[in-house]
Amino acid sequence: MIERIRRRAGGTATSLQLGIGDDCAILRPRPGQDLLVTTDFSLEGRHFRRDWHSPESIGHRALARGLSDLAAMGARPMAAFLSLALPRSVARDTDWLDGFLDGLLGLAAQHSVPLAGGDTSESPSEHVLADIVLLGSAPQGRALRRSGARAGDLIYCTGALGGAAAELSQLPEKNKSERRVRRGETQRTQRISTVNPHLFPQPRLAAGQALLRRRLATACIDTSDGLSTDLTHLCDASGVNAEVDAARLPLHFLAEQLGADAALSAALHGGEDYELLFTAGASTKIPRSLSGVAMTCIGRVVAKKRNAPQITLIAADGSRSALAPHGWEHLR
Amino acid sequence: MIERIRRRAGGTATSLQLGIGDDCAILRPRPGQDLLVTTDFSLEGRHFRRDWHSPESIGHRALARGLSDLAAMGARPMAAFLSLALPRSVARDTDWLDGFLDGLLGLAAQHSVPLAGGDTSESPSEHVLADIVLLGSAPQGRALRRSGARAGDLIYCTGALGGAAAELSQLPEKNKSERRVRRGETQRTQRISTVNPHLFPQPRLAAGQALLRRRLATACIDTSDGLSTDLTHLCDASGVNAEVDAARLPLHFLAEQLGADAALSAALHGGEDYELLFTAGASTKIPRSLSGVAMTCIGRVVAKKRNAPQITLIAADGSRSALAPHGWEHLR
Repeated sequence: MIERIRRRAGGTATSLQLGIGDDCAILRPRPGQDLLVTTDFSLEGRHFRRDWHSPESIGHRALARGLSDLAAMGARPMAAFLSLALPRSVARDTDWLDGFLDGLLGLAAQHSVPLAGGDTSESPSEHVLADIVLLGSAPQGRALRRSGARAGDLIYCTGALGGAAAELSQLPEKNKSERRVRRGETQRTQRISTVNPHLFPQPRLAAGQALLRRRLATACIDTSDGLSTDLTHLCDASGVNAEVDAARLPLHFLAEQLGADAALSAALHGGEDYELLFTAGASTKIPRSLSGVAMTCIGRVVAKKRNAPQITLIAADGSRSALAPHGWEHLR
Repeated sequence: MIERIRRRAGGTATSLQLGIGDDCAILRPRPGQDLLVTTDFSLEGRHFRRDWHSPESIGHRALARGLSDLAAMGARPMAAFLSLALPRSVARDTDWLDGFLDGLLGLAAQHSVPLAGGDTSESPSEHVLADIVLLGSAPQGRALRRSGARAGDLIYCTGALGGAAAELSQLPEKNKSERRVRRGETQRTQRISTVNPHLFPQPRLAAGQALLRRRLATACIDTSDGLSTDLTHLCDASGVNAEVDAARLPLHFLAEQLGADAALSAALHGGEDYELLFTAGASTKIPRSLSGVAMTCIGRVVAKKRNAPQITLIAADGSRSALAPHGWEHLR
């Protein structure tokens, strides 16, 4: 298993001095850069199901979770590390591991991230267990944080919302073979991510890096848990409240197919869209599109106020209601 | 669970700019240093059993695995990251998590390593699942590797061998309450590590750093899988063969209590001693003790030769036999 991963991990990066095969990997950080680190579990039964997700999707999504965390801080990815435990029955099926690596390494290649190390084990249960570690870099002191939003800022999101939840809601009904990306077709991933926002989400690295480089954002987070939950995290970290205009939310076309109420719910609470949610000063000019990704203003940051809800949802008719965090735990 | 970990994670390090609570942690590497990274699973049923190991031991051993990988390369630890998934029944028992954190953070404090981030989840099974990530630093281009051994070098190990396997072999018979370190006694860890080499192994960070600083070693690895397996890894990476003198192996006193044959087997094949196994030029003077740890010459590096075994064991009477890698998988 280690050999199979090592043979395919290849990929060179100037910062990688030593990859898989010693007690540690060795990286050489560039001077003047901070180092960003994130770890994300992908556990069967919690984050994916083998009867719903192809091995390519599972590998792609495992890496996308970590890359999206880097995107949220405007970082450039340096290296990925994979801890992977397979049940004996899955380890025997080299097709499964190959498909998983197709998905993971296909996305890694898109973003020039070497797989630099990790750990392998036999799983103690019938669950595939993965933990992905991403290292990235950002100019010293410049990484985007959740804590910089101020009253008066406007709130933006990238891309479209609710697509991942909409696609997931229809997964069990679909034929598994339909969803399975055939081997050797990982180059289609970029295209697939538009129509398969759940199975092949595309982390917004270029958009995050552009926000950092052009000093556009005051705070940023990715929508991994759902807009209502992630905006709550951002408000908590910044010590502010927020108002969201329901009519301005950019709904994913898959969400719109669910009908108006379900689409709004998917956009507000459906997790795993892996878009960026960020704030910018009211006088900052945010382009309609950045690095090829749409940017939509969806609300504003307001000062904390006694008895006011942390997040207020303003409907099209102007009526106001409290928006509580309800990020979906999809596989519960 | 995140709050409980965050409250206790504290610990400051000059290189840590931002710890738990954003999408990524932020570290500032020192100029002129390479970055070393290692990830290690600690999975219940594979690496530990809750009916054999106290939560303090499980937390201690999870971190020790990663620290030992840094020690093997002569690195200084910078930060640790923990991905932790608990079964619902264990998550309810805050004593278990507190004990686990006592063990992990007690060892982290000894080595001034901040817990800088990670991930949490509910386990999809009844198994506690942990993945520990360690970041460390070493002067550019100076990290010890497995690949530098040359024919004519001598082979050394630190400390004593076979103790972890010997202690493990007696664990099931012992009363669980005897083995459980009482809360608040984690300061005893240093002492315990001598008499509890399996439950509380002490990674050889100071010794590894001294080997690097004083340019004593040509190659190095830690004995996590057992001497026969780890020496094989070192020989593979260096393209050499090795001879080991059985009579010179420093046996742990717990191994000696098993009798001569079992002691030798534990020293050769018993894993998880977390000692350093290193090579040095024949003319290099290796002190008997370095950073308070014994250094013992146990054999020599020889050139590869057709039909010769990769590792030859030389008995006290001079008889020679091939030594195959038989690292124990303890919990199988």
